[in-house]
Amino acid sequence: MQGAGAKAPQPTYEGDFVLDEHLLLDCGRTLAGPTLHYAVYGRLNAARDNAVLVCHALSGSAQVGAWWPEILAPGGLLSLEHDCVLCVNLLGSCYGSTGPGSVDRETGEVYGADFPLVTIRDNVRAQTRLLDSLGIKRLRLALGGSIGGMQALEWAILNPDRVERAVIIGVAPLSAMGIALNHLQRKAIQQDPAWDGGRYLPQRPPRQGLALARQIAMLSYKSASLFDERFGRNPNRNGEDPRALDDLGGGLIGGRFDIAGYLDHQGKRFIDRFDANAYLAILRTMETWDPLHGFASPTEAFSRIRARLSFVGISSDWLFPPESVRHFAYTIRSAGVQADYREMTSDHGHDAFLAEQSELVSLLA
Amino acid sequence: MQGAGAKAPQPTYEGDFVLDEHLLLDCGRTLAGPTLHYAVYGRLNAARDNAVLVCHALSGSAQVGAWWPEILAPGGLLSLEHDCVLCVNLLGSCYGSTGPGSVDRETGEVYGADFPLVTIRDNVRAQTRLLDSLGIKRLRLALGGSIGGMQALEWAILNPDRVERAVIIGVAPLSAMGIALNHLQRKAIQQDPAWDGGRYLPQRPPRQGLALARQIAMLSYKSASLFDERFGRNPNRNGEDPRALDDLGGGLIGGRFDIAGYLDHQGKRFIDRFDANAYLAILRTMETWDPLHGFASPTEAFSRIRARLSFVGISSDWLFPPESVRHFAYTIRSAGVQADYREMTSDHGHDAFLAEQSELVSLLA
Repeated sequence: MQGAGAKAPQPTYEGDFVLDEHLLLDCGRTLAGPTLHYAVYGRLNAARDNAVLVCHALSGSAQVGAWWPEILAPGGLLSLEHDCVLCVNLLGSCYGSTGPGSVDRETGEVYGADFPLVTIRDNVRAQTRLLDSLGIKRLRLALGGSIGGMQALEWAILNPDRVERAVIIGVAPLSAMGIALNHLQRKAIQQDPAWDGGRYLPQRPPRQGLALARQIAMLSYKSASLFDERFGRNPNRNGEDPRALDDLGGGLIGGRFDIAGYLDHQGKRFIDRFDANAYLAILRTMETWDPLHGFASPTEAFSRIRARLSFVGISSDWLFPPESVRHFAYTIRSAGVQADYREMTSDHGHDAFLAEQSELVSLLA
Repeated sequence: MQGAGAKAPQPTYEGDFVLDEHLLLDCGRTLAGPTLHYAVYGRLNAARDNAVLVCHALSGSAQVGAWWPEILAPGGLLSLEHDCVLCVNLLGSCYGSTGPGSVDRETGEVYGADFPLVTIRDNVRAQTRLLDSLGIKRLRLALGGSIGGMQALEWAILNPDRVERAVIIGVAPLSAMGIALNHLQRKAIQQDPAWDGGRYLPQRPPRQGLALARQIAMLSYKSASLFDERFGRNPNRNGEDPRALDDLGGGLIGGRFDIAGYLDHQGKRFIDRFDANAYLAILRTMETWDPLHGFASPTEAFSRIRARLSFVGISSDWLFPPESVRHFAYTIRSAGVQADYREMTSDHGHDAFLAEQSELVSLLA
């Protein structure tokens, strides 16, 4: 969903960066010369000190202008006159960076189910090489919502001298409920016979499984009150009757309510734009994120941070509830980090950082 | 889940009541001589004025002693010395009453996907015939949680002179989020190729689809805080590692977290005890429930009620949030009905009426 009214800004550059060596991953495997697909909006100044890194969420792409237009619009949070905004497609994704659908340069075969686990840190390490290659020593700002926020915070932890400020929206380490939602999305894909252990051909993907996974996710991206307001108990707007019998006179399925029609539509839209194995890969990237992993204590992990941090919770978010985001921010602050917490009041649930961009701009202005 | 410590009381009678005529359903179809399977605990007194009707939830059975033992135990809400407790299996279910797995007496064939839509009201009308046959003119109390509460309230609406008191726990008309959850459960079953349009043989049921449906439902029966407390971000207790690669070295699936192991276990348990078509049938019974259907206004529907009503909301219930239950109770009270609202403080979510029976007893004592 994208904010109304803002025209999508176009990138000044969009292209691939290929690491000229192996990327050693947290899981112990390597990616051989992986590609990072990225987009640039605005221009790097002579001092190279105006770079902003926007990090995208699960199903996002490097084209931040397409999904966050109001953030880049005049009067938005960023200025394409003064800022050079970069966005890098996640490893594991299907929008240009190396993922399960890519050819493994070592074997000459498509990765498929052999694609390794790529963590948030692995992504940040790869992004760091890209910024090195562009001669960007320091980010004025790193920011993102959801998985994007995980990356922004890891940037501040792993590269403390290279991040001035980070804005982390609607995110904390995934809770048990979040892990549960991921697990059921994964099962929906796995149980589709077309998934075939991850070995499906691009022209025969597990469409039903991926659609159901997306629909489960949609429940967690929105709020119950938004659903009530938009759909209530209305019959599907196409005229179906939820009290009707099936075409053959049975009653097990019947007509849909409006919310069901909406979810089916969202599922259909998604399978035309996303790949099931990429979805599985990024679910794991998301749920394995633990900023404390490898550190002896929260203090050891977080006291490294030099950036000023702003955390944003969303009032109606039940995937990453605002109290978890606030608690997370305060834990980091206790390690001596400059970290503030702000809350977006919105009915849109987790999706509010995409659906209500102008409110986000006001909150962070 | 059932409360600890209470031994399951045994029914004094359990058997079938067969309607000797057709049951005309709200959907316009009929069920030919349907069976109601029911259980009786305690004994009807000579005046036949000690009958209590307990109504069960989606996957419950007539054996209320097995799933609500503390309610029937000495010191519980009901007394098997003084009360005669009846519980009737829902039409559409797979625990003895006529459902999709039964033979249609008219065609001699198993209903399967031809089973019609049976509403909450249809169930109450059939239960009324059973009580007629037992010579029970009036219920001292009708009560139930979730779908059971829907039936208890419909008893008070449809048979105003036959219900003295009704207790309605954790329920209101299903919200858009609730309908959405039902829709995705239905899709999980439909998308399992073994479902085969509802025509599967009993020995080859859609196990994967039904397990996933149950797992989606489990999310809505429990609370995020309970999941955090019980499972957190722990790896599965069987020793799996959520950061591990798959057996073949890939990273798309990997080891499970503890919450995922728990959900898989719940799915497995469920497919051994429930039928997929019965599940589909009762999802529709649940979501089509609208106590205002056929009435011109809430006042017309609710002012018929003569029973004293008690509504119970559960603090952590997000399937039927306590504020919805309270609002529903107050709407009914505005029609001039004696209705109070009480709230159970519990971390167990919607399931609290089954998981924390002693708290429910205290609240209603």
